Amino acid sequence: MWEKKAEWPLIGLAVVFLVAYAVPIVWPDVSPQTAVLCEVLITTTWVLFGVDYVGRLLLSADRRGFVRHNLFDLAILVLPMLRPLRLLRLLTLLRVLDRTTADGLRGRVVTYAVGATSLLILVGGLAITDTERGVDGSTIEHVGDGIWWAVVTMTTVGYGDEYPVTATGRCVAVVLMAMGITLLGVVTATLASWLTDQVAEMGEEDGAATRAEVRELRDEIRSLRAELTAAGAAPPAGEGGAAEGQR
Amino acid sequence: MWEKKAEWPLIGLAVVFLVAYAVPIVWPDVSPQTAVLCEVLITTTWVLFGVDYVGRLLLSADRRGFVRHNLFDLAILVLPMLRPLRLLRLLTLLRVLDRTTADGLRGRVVTYAVGATSLLILVGGLAITDTERGVDGSTIEHVGDGIWWAVVTMTTVGYGDEYPVTATGRCVAVVLMAMGITLLGVVTATLASWLTDQVAEMGEEDGAATRAEVRELRDEIRSLRAELTAAGAAPPAGEGGAAEGQR
Amino acid sequence: MWEKKAEWPLIGLAVVFLVAYAVPIVWPDVSPQTAVLCEVLITTTWVLFGVDYVGRLLLSADRRGFVRHNLFDLAILVLPMLRPLRLLRLLTLLRVLDRTTADGLRGRVVTYAVGATSLLILVGGLAITDTERGVDGSTIEHVGDGIWWAVVTMTTVGYGDEYPVTATGRCVAVVLMAMGITLLGVVTATLASWLTDQVAEMGEEDGAATRAEVRELRDEIRSLRAELTAAGAAPPAGEGGAAEGQR
Amino acid sequence: MWEKKAEWPLIGLAVVFLVAYAVPIVWPDVSPQTAVLCEVLITTTWVLFGVDYVGRLLLSADRRGFVRHNLFDLAILVLPMLRPLRLLRLLTLLRVLDRTTADGLRGRVVTYAVGATSLLILVGGLAITDTERGVDGSTIEHVGDGIWWAVVTMTTVGYGDEYPVTATGRCVAVVLMAMGITLLGVVTATLASWLTDQVAEMGEEDGAATRAEVRELRDEIRSLRAELTAAGAAPPAGEGGAAEGQR
Repeated sequence: MWEKKAEWPLIGLAVVFLVAYAVPIVWPDVSPQTAVLCEVLITTTWVLFGVDYVGRLLLSADRRGFVRHNLFDLAILVLPMLRPLRLLRLLTLLRVLDRTTADGLRGRVVTYAVGATSLLILVGGLAITDTERGVDGSTIEHVGDGIWWAVVTMTTVGYGDEYPVTATGRCVAVVLMAMGITLLGVVTATLASWLTDQVAEMGEEDGAATRAEVRELRDEIRSLRAELTAAGAAPPAGEGGAAEGQR
Repeated sequence: MWEKKAEWPLIGLAVVFLVAYAVPIVWPDVSPQTAVLCEVLITTTWVLFGVDYVGRLLLSADRRGFVRHNLFDLAILVLPMLRPLRLLRLLTLLRVLDRTTADGLRGRVVTYAVGATSLLILVGGLAITDTERGVDGSTIEHVGDGIWWAVVTMTTVGYGDEYPVTATGRCVAVVLMAMGITLLGVVTATLASWLTDQVAEMGEEDGAATRAEVRELRDEIRSLRAELTAAGAAPPAGEGGAAEGQR
Repeated sequence: MWEKKAEWPLIGLAVVFLVAYAVPIVWPDVSPQTAVLCEVLITTTWVLFGVDYVGRLLLSADRRGFVRHNLFDLAILVLPMLRPLRLLRLLTLLRVLDRTTADGLRGRVVTYAVGATSLLILVGGLAITDTERGVDGSTIEHVGDGIWWAVVTMTTVGYGDEYPVTATGRCVAVVLMAMGITLLGVVTATLASWLTDQVAEMGEEDGAATRAEVRELRDEIRSLRAELTAAGAAPPAGEGGAAEGQR
Repeated sequence: MWEKKAEWPLIGLAVVFLVAYAVPIVWPDVSPQTAVLCEVLITTTWVLFGVDYVGRLLLSADRRGFVRHNLFDLAILVLPMLRPLRLLRLLTLLRVLDRTTADGLRGRVVTYAVGATSLLILVGGLAITDTERGVDGSTIEHVGDGIWWAVVTMTTVGYGDEYPVTATGRCVAVVLMAMGITLLGVVTATLASWLTDQVAEMGEEDGAATRAEVRELRDEIRSLRAELTAAGAAPPAGEGGAAEGQR
């Protein structure tokens, strides 16, 4: 119940967090007031995410099990380094897309892959710009560079015109690379599944023939049986009844 | 009817556009007259593409639906930045290839993939040279560099000897990368589908055996039935007839 | 028997070897005593791995066959260049994971892939740092750089901010690249297999119907038979017995 | 007959060509005599490949068809730029491997992929060194660099520490990249096929059950038939005979 009711407010919180997180990264020279406002908003959303976590913990029957199954949520809350991952909550937005596009499993897999990829590129680009800007040896200066780097990394192209030099930046890169490999796998698997289906459709008649033959067999047996009943019922009437009883 | 009749003229237009678009990129120091001629040709093809769009719009029963389903066509017409994408109309040329190579779905998928890849590398190479040449920090100076960059990007190799530095160039790169990942997926899926079929063929005898057994069963039942009819027909002739009627 | 008993001690040895191999690479300026201790531990584990190899050789029935099937083990023992590969024995640790995660073949494949990838990145990062540090033209100076390079190589991103310049380093890179391609294949294959299953589940009812029909046929024949027996048994009792004998 | 008899001599020729092609690339400062010898050997093998082509052409029934189906062979003979591709004849050597490793289709696919990859890396490395060495802006100076570049290219890692700068070198690169993508596809497809089979094996019992049920049905019908014959044969002997005749 809590989870149902909290779903939309939490998505709203994630959007607020995204804006408050993005603004000082996109415009590094905002007025001090705006910077403070963003900080306040980030802290507020953090507190509210914490309230949600504690709420779900208190309402769960098996609290030890809850903590064990939600270690990732806990890590995102407690470790400031993992802060950008709070945006992953936006992935629940994709469930809305699910409702609109209803053309089979493959369509849903593709929708999810495209949505998750876009979100990861956006978040990865913001996070890397936040981490690397102004660091010695780094070439990532603007959000544009950061998002370009995220695309180049996720597609495993890796030109090398921009690359992270800090430990935090490299952790962001590892996440993007892992997701990039998975994305490639999803694209290929979807195509392979589609192609296999198309090829199978052409060879379908064989299986259909077998099924038709089984049906034909059944009809043959039924008519055989009807004849048998007719033949058996006539000479000694009692025996046909016995057979019916035995059946 | 419009679409059928307009198909070949539109392919011709796309070829004219390709030439007029390519010439000033391949030879940057053409005579001013040639440059003007190319500009005129590009504008003319643009107008004619627009006429085709409006014509299809007016002839369609559901005009709102037409606009909604052809947003991509509209974007290519209206946004000058997407101009190179008008060449995608050349992909319809691949339908001609379809007719010549008739060896199964996989053959057609491979033909389409090779055709689309070649076209994308050509168009991508032209577009990136057009966009990046002379820009500060860019290393793409000739069409040869541009096409080489397109190949390196689509195969996700990404040496980093050439890479786009402008926003437009990076958009071209994103399209090529997305297509490159899809290409990789198509190659893998086709190979997987072929391999699965080859492996399945070896295990085929099992299924064939079952089908043979079903056929054998049917024959057995039929002969059984013939015997039954023969046996039943002899003692009381009328009953056999009753059975036939009941069937 | 030897192999069963030696399994855990050998894993222990591999861990000791890992620590003794890693320490002087991670902290290049350890005290001379520690460096000597590490050397001693590496030599000791090497001797014990050799004892294991000789023991297995002496206990095997077909000694020539043993040598032929364990050329890789021999190479790791004899060639000092392949020393880091001794750590591959740690892969047997993954068998422990097998016991805990019992959710199907795909789960086990993923577990194995993640475990092997992590181990390879760790070992590859250590080996490349050991090989390349201080070499002219190399940019890999710390273990952090080495592990970052291993990740960038295995995911086939290849920024080019760090790359091996020595022959040994390039051999390490080739192993990582080959494993990276295999990893990508494993991820894709697992996803494809999962997706194929999900899609197949939806088309399942057809096959189930056939099976149901076959079962129905069987029941029909059985009841037919019961009737026949009843009909045949009544008029001449002896003949039914003859039929039973003939069966 | 010509093709059968010429197979081994042509493989021998390809090996001679490989050595004569490789020697001046690996040791750029060989004595002039050796260089001349290599030139002579390359010309001789070229003449003999030409003799083979003409021989096959003269012996073929449909000469126009032969030329059309062997355009690739002709191109390799006539264009000096494609000279290294003559080594592709060594791929026929892999047929020998076919005989030794007889463990199924997947084993053969993997053998072929590994063999073709090794040969391509060797030939690609030699060809790029031949083409790029001494060219302005190129960093490929030794065969070691060339082979390292070939590996980095085929695995699509693409660090960018070495890359071709000449048109010929870039053509070599395109071939290697195309093969690299195919290699990746082969690895993935083989893994996917293997995994699908493993998963299918677990669901096998269902299909086996159906087959068993069909077999059971057959036995049931046979015994039913035997009983019928026995029952029918006893009362009126002539009718059983009539049934046999009708069958």
